[in-house]
Amino acid sequence: MCASQYRMPGSVPASCSAQWPEDVGIIAMELYFPSQFVDQAELEDFDGVSPGKYTVGLGQARMGFCSDREDINSLCLTAVQRLMERNGLAYDSIGRLEVGTETIIDKSKSVKTVLMQLFEDSGNTDVEGIDTTNACYGGTAALFNAINWVESSSWDGRYALVVAGDIAVYATGSARPTGGAGAVAMLIGPNAPLALDRGLRGTHMKHAYDFYKPDMVSEYPVVDGKLSIECYLSALDRCYTVYRNKIHAQWQRVGVEKRFTLDDFGYIVFHSPYCKLVQKSLARLVLNDFLVHPDPDTETGTFAGLEAFRQVRPEETYFDRDVEKAFMKASAEMFDQKTKHSLLVSNQNGNMYTPSVYGCLASIIALNTPQQLMGQRIGVFSYGSGFAATLYSITVTQDDTPGSGLDSLVSSLQDLQVRLDSRNKVSPAVFSENMKLRQETHHLASYVPKGSVEDLFPGTWYLTRVDENHRREYARRAVDVDPHLQGRLLQSTTCTATEPIPSPARKMARIPATTTGAEADAVSNGDH
Amino acid sequence: MCASQYRMPGSVPASCSAQWPEDVGIIAMELYFPSQFVDQAELEDFDGVSPGKYTVGLGQARMGFCSDREDINSLCLTAVQRLMERNGLAYDSIGRLEVGTETIIDKSKSVKTVLMQLFEDSGNTDVEGIDTTNACYGGTAALFNAINWVESSSWDGRYALVVAGDIAVYATGSARPTGGAGAVAMLIGPNAPLALDRGLRGTHMKHAYDFYKPDMVSEYPVVDGKLSIECYLSALDRCYTVYRNKIHAQWQRVGVEKRFTLDDFGYIVFHSPYCKLVQKSLARLVLNDFLVHPDPDTETGTFAGLEAFRQVRPEETYFDRDVEKAFMKASAEMFDQKTKHSLLVSNQNGNMYTPSVYGCLASIIALNTPQQLMGQRIGVFSYGSGFAATLYSITVTQDDTPGSGLDSLVSSLQDLQVRLDSRNKVSPAVFSENMKLRQETHHLASYVPKGSVEDLFPGTWYLTRVDENHRREYARRAVDVDPHLQGRLLQSTTCTATEPIPSPARKMARIPATTTGAEADAVSNGDH
Repeated sequence: MCASQYRMPGSVPASCSAQWPEDVGIIAMELYFPSQFVDQAELEDFDGVSPGKYTVGLGQARMGFCSDREDINSLCLTAVQRLMERNGLAYDSIGRLEVGTETIIDKSKSVKTVLMQLFEDSGNTDVEGIDTTNACYGGTAALFNAINWVESSSWDGRYALVVAGDIAVYATGSARPTGGAGAVAMLIGPNAPLALDRGLRGTHMKHAYDFYKPDMVSEYPVVDGKLSIECYLSALDRCYTVYRNKIHAQWQRVGVEKRFTLDDFGYIVFHSPYCKLVQKSLARLVLNDFLVHPDPDTETGTFAGLEAFRQVRPEETYFDRDVEKAFMKASAEMFDQKTKHSLLVSNQNGNMYTPSVYGCLASIIALNTPQQLMGQRIGVFSYGSGFAATLYSITVTQDDTPGSGLDSLVSSLQDLQVRLDSRNKVSPAVFSENMKLRQETHHLASYVPKGSVEDLFPGTWYLTRVDENHRREYARRAVDVDPHLQGRLLQSTTCTATEPIPSPARKMARIPATTTGAEADAVSNGDH
Repeated sequence: MCASQYRMPGSVPASCSAQWPEDVGIIAMELYFPSQFVDQAELEDFDGVSPGKYTVGLGQARMGFCSDREDINSLCLTAVQRLMERNGLAYDSIGRLEVGTETIIDKSKSVKTVLMQLFEDSGNTDVEGIDTTNACYGGTAALFNAINWVESSSWDGRYALVVAGDIAVYATGSARPTGGAGAVAMLIGPNAPLALDRGLRGTHMKHAYDFYKPDMVSEYPVVDGKLSIECYLSALDRCYTVYRNKIHAQWQRVGVEKRFTLDDFGYIVFHSPYCKLVQKSLARLVLNDFLVHPDPDTETGTFAGLEAFRQVRPEETYFDRDVEKAFMKASAEMFDQKTKHSLLVSNQNGNMYTPSVYGCLASIIALNTPQQLMGQRIGVFSYGSGFAATLYSITVTQDDTPGSGLDSLVSSLQDLQVRLDSRNKVSPAVFSENMKLRQETHHLASYVPKGSVEDLFPGTWYLTRVDENHRREYARRAVDVDPHLQGRLLQSTTCTATEPIPSPARKMARIPATTTGAEADAVSNGDH
């Protein structure tokens, strides 16, 4: 099949028998959120709305936000450098880096190119990937692109980095409490503790104006709230249908005759605009299972008492209170078991847009032990308005031994609650002033930010200045002792304590072999 | 190696012996440019600059531009639908579509989601990919992502579409004549007449503010012209070095001891901000060949008379007139043979940004016969400011028989010159009025465009209205007889005349098999 007779020597396939590497997926995750938050109950009071509107109605407890010291570039710089340091990674072990974001501060220059500053000392500039955008879906698109790269002939044996970051802010009004901010960086490669299941992506993309940002000078979106819920839930229905069809086809190919249900997922995580919608979404999936079940037991078990809903048409139930209430109840136990833990970051920090669903994934990992996670299939629903959505799944490795990839990943996220608790609470009035300051200044040239640098977490990159030509300059807060953070985080941010993880190419036979050596030479060739 | 014991049934790899399909690359190309242009000699006169400044100094003859009837969405709608129609493709044969652009009219909603309107009748919404951005590099990133997808376990046997589109406009002044506009749509799959060479991507990415768009409300970029040339040329040097290292490593693995030179490229195409820079860039590559040659012949041949430049340091020569002049002369013959033809669209339509380098590739195909192209290796240099650059290569199939993929591709581009000649020339004054109109209105809500619809090419999508919430609505000019276009184009835009190309999955054995059938059923399942 390979080395066709007409090929010239140089275009011989790198390997004729090259196979996809095993278990390509997420090896490490680094989650960054701002060091300050506003309390949603206090915000209810400040906004003069009925108590519980944000905390119960939306399911949100706290909302992280950025002063004018942080922008999309600084958020991603922080997340990437923390990931590299905490895992002791060398910058020349990275062969691809892609950023997913909808926080656009330049219509041409990518965040990726700004991140290349971190690579300068290593001399590694041979790093594929740029930025990718569609609302909250950009991180998932970047992840898929990274996974595909590792499985393609373009892979050179090095890791990929996927970065998702956003600052989610809304004009004053009912949407404001659904903001948030943060970034996640993920290390992608083979033999990963979280391996993406092959061929199992149920995707649904369509044209809609449910949430978009046509006012280029504003940080705020235009939102059609009702339409957006309808788009989200219809996409969930459709993605689940496509996912089920694909897994059924896979099972049939290996001779397994079985109907897929939510019982086959150990955990289910969703893009979380606010926690309440996630709870409704799980109920929605149970409705899907119920409606496609050939003969559901409505006497006992999950579907008990749901007989009356046997004939409902899903497309007529997006806002049907009876259906919602019945299936919220039916899915309550499943929610506690499979989804509730995923909402830690979402509940405490708000909607981060592109990183949101990965914050949910990180929360699941953080709040469970390797023994609980091992071998589980995790369903992941990613949604970005406009709209683009995919339901895919991850299978957790069976290897939960101390020192294993899974053990390391779980350990690295153990401090999530401590870090969330270590943030500074500020009053709604101060939050509101910050929003006003951002609104008036986020797009200005010749600007020096006013926000405090001392309030940032150690190791946080921040904006020092925007010059007269809109060029942005950054500095990093020292990685030093922070009184709020206890031993484990302090140790793990000290990069010298960790043994560097070698590039995967050094651990496994793989063709084409990495050319890092040759390129490193080229760097000092004096070519520029 | 596969089906590890801990895998649950559904996560068994789709195929244990799955190999990358053969010759993944470009199967079909569709180039769209506006129906109107301004003459660069007339523009010199209008701008009051010395004659030849634009036509000789920049090497530009004509510049295409859009009225307020076209935006990035309409450009891409036009290119995609023309590609589908001219190749008789069904929309359910597409499994991925990614758009590369730096013409951002919404910070969140992707152009990709707008294009999903074309898929509505087919019921196919399971189409991966969103938008990708870094200046003029977005099309190349989208192409690489599509190629990787076809080689990955995610591929379901369907085609990928890559779309690159931009409207390049500048404020009045010296950069204005370097504008342009257009879009290219490319059909990606296996067994392609233009196959991307595996493992041969020399990439160089770095942080620079050479050209960027920080003024979110303006269509115009901020440009540091001198820095941008330096970035472009330094990236070219570095990408060529990395490319050479990679091909040397590949050759060594198959026992070929040989030094790569430009003689190994049959054609060389470059991102073209203006044609003169491309000519200088080829000279620059010859300088590279000269400097790395262990013992160049400076008596006869390409390097004759260049002895004095043996010790130059490339990083000191970006603006060295002596070096430039000497190597322009040394490369003159090579330019005529390998690069000149690539500049047809660039010279006649200007810089299209992301589609630019693919316009150059299309020009090479259009102006050569299958017999001239067969078996040739084409070097492709893509550059996007900020910056991201890659030098990669394409190998043209050996099969030049009538009806072959190469023959079809070449035939489909034969009308390029005729189409360019069929455009309407407008005066610099009218061009200038159009620029002013765009400047004042391109970002407005509640706007109805003023530009003529009748002046558009048949089959062109155009903006009918932007409503009070910035939602954009489009219509398409009928695909009817156009007096400017002769027989061949007329026939080829009539889609019923063509036999549909089946999805590649129907032609070749491939696991995982396409699930189009199952999903098509799902569409009519009534799920939404």
